Amino acid sequence: MATAPLATRPVPERIFNTLNAFQSTAALKTAFELDLFTAIAEGANQAATLAERVGAAERGVRILADYLAIQGFVTKEGGRYSLAQETAGFLDRRSPAYMGTLIGFLASDRHKQSFERLTDAVRAGGSVMPEADNRQPQDKMWVAFAKSMSPLTGPSAVFMAQLAGMQEQKPSKILDVAASHGMFGITFALQNPKAQIVALDWPAVLEVAKENARAAGVGDRVRLLPGSVFEADLGTDYDLVLLTNILHHFDKATNERLLERIHAALKPGGRAITLEFVPNEDRITPPTAAAFSLIMLTGTAAGDAYTFSEYEAMFKNVGFLKNTLYQLPAGAQQVVVSEKA
Amino acid sequence: MATAPLATRPVPERIFNTLNAFQSTAALKTAFELDLFTAIAEGANQAATLAERVGAAERGVRILADYLAIQGFVTKEGGRYSLAQETAGFLDRRSPAYMGTLIGFLASDRHKQSFERLTDAVRAGGSVMPEADNRQPQDKMWVAFAKSMSPLTGPSAVFMAQLAGMQEQKPSKILDVAASHGMFGITFALQNPKAQIVALDWPAVLEVAKENARAAGVGDRVRLLPGSVFEADLGTDYDLVLLTNILHHFDKATNERLLERIHAALKPGGRAITLEFVPNEDRITPPTAAAFSLIMLTGTAAGDAYTFSEYEAMFKNVGFLKNTLYQLPAGAQQVVVSEKA
Repeated sequence: MATAPLATRPVPERIFNTLNAFQSTAALKTAFELDLFTAIAEGANQAATLAERVGAAERGVRILADYLAIQGFVTKEGGRYSLAQETAGFLDRRSPAYMGTLIGFLASDRHKQSFERLTDAVRAGGSVMPEADNRQPQDKMWVAFAKSMSPLTGPSAVFMAQLAGMQEQKPSKILDVAASHGMFGITFALQNPKAQIVALDWPAVLEVAKENARAAGVGDRVRLLPGSVFEADLGTDYDLVLLTNILHHFDKATNERLLERIHAALKPGGRAITLEFVPNEDRITPPTAAAFSLIMLTGTAAGDAYTFSEYEAMFKNVGFLKNTLYQLPAGAQQVVVSEKA
Repeated sequence: MATAPLATRPVPERIFNTLNAFQSTAALKTAFELDLFTAIAEGANQAATLAERVGAAERGVRILADYLAIQGFVTKEGGRYSLAQETAGFLDRRSPAYMGTLIGFLASDRHKQSFERLTDAVRAGGSVMPEADNRQPQDKMWVAFAKSMSPLTGPSAVFMAQLAGMQEQKPSKILDVAASHGMFGITFALQNPKAQIVALDWPAVLEVAKENARAAGVGDRVRLLPGSVFEADLGTDYDLVLLTNILHHFDKATNERLLERIHAALKPGGRAITLEFVPNEDRITPPTAAAFSLIMLTGTAAGDAYTFSEYEAMFKNVGFLKNTLYQLPAGAQQVVVSEKA
């Protein structure tokens, strides 16, 4: 191939690639829908055999698989596709760490529609979607969340349980707020046979947690508490309260009302353990935690990816004594541990 | 910040980032729609002043601008935003190389909708959109293309004109097939005062080319030929025929019918100059050229990003003698020069 030495202006790769970025989300979603990665792992690794296996046209499958190779999800050698390491671990349906369920929430139509209205959300300063008030039950959305997002729980939940000393196996009464799939509380229960969990969420969502607790063999130690964290009788004398991915939905004043109730429910010396996207004070690092703000802009009335100093102020304002920030060793989230005097 | 040394499984960053990738397209589109980059360049460089300037909420603008900083489009220092170099060159409306018009086609609703039906397209082996037959005029789409895509023409058009020897300023009769905005032929006319251009496209599209030719001062050397390349009387004795981004729309047999007509219109020794996305034989490199196949899958009945050996076969089958592949020095596309005996 000849290359002529002609001077031209630079081509704006970042702009072009960003305008096309939505295509990669669509391609991965289609791969999930066709269960393409499992089919490749099971040996249907050329366009023709793969097409037959997933019930699609050879041209379509060849182009899709090539695109997934370009994106790094598969490798291609002599016309044969193989799964890249991360793909084999998380996107082969037979893997214990399978994450294909994530698309049920992260690439849902509702989520995408909220981004189609991003310009309106920027103008308004908050979500323009009808379901943006997260203080009301929205069964369809949150049941989908509970069913799809539990694969992301594993590493964070284990980290949090050890941070909270569960390996010491002392009796612990634990409130799991907005429990969703229940997997945070369930992980604490698995790490500590003397832990008793109260899982709070909307009734329809708790059905998912109940089934997960039963499947994990800790159904007798996970009590269901249906209702709103703003209204339910939370009980008292908790050693720990888990606040996983809930505070980002609300403005600061609403969070303080919520945290007042949590503070009252904890025993003296008890701790709230918050799992969140906590960007640095510059609000642009680390990238995934900081970028989470945009999802809160499109999806909530006034939620945010709050910085540690903002969380510290909210917790201190309702009486917590000390707050400590931890970075998850793997993953994009952070943990704040807040102690009651 | 403390980091506990706990072993956890790796977090699948590529999967998570790809599921979220569509958000970056939406954010850039919103920045265009609000003309955010021009506002920053003009000095409205903090969230509050920027919000006032673009008529949006401060919370919305702060979160959007932070997200664009995370993506590298702007920098942020002490709460003030500045344009990154590429952004200043291409996304400030006052720049001569402004590319904001690209969103009119690349991020159009129609284009995005075609990707929402990607799974159907993979199953069917071709576009499931109603406008997938590119042999018919589709004024709305192609006028939008002509109006939005000309900023991408510059470097490729200059490279092609020099490859074709326009700097020698010999009399040349040039057919610009599917001329669209006309900027390829116009660039040839600008490089060579003795070049005469015939611009072929649908009538509504040619209005855009006509205006661009007039603005470039070469209106008297750009003759408009309205119609279909498959049916129009193309004329004869051309020195050059420009085939820019047209052959990817069709299957090989259709392309050979088109190329037969081109071959007949060229004088002996004449050349066809094809600008295309031409991936290597592995079909997965270089990435942008190879990834273009997916756009052809969602948007056409049977088009493709053909390899050089596929183009070589099509051109040879209709009588062209010799084909040579060139890589554009800047940009994701390739050029094939095909000579008539």
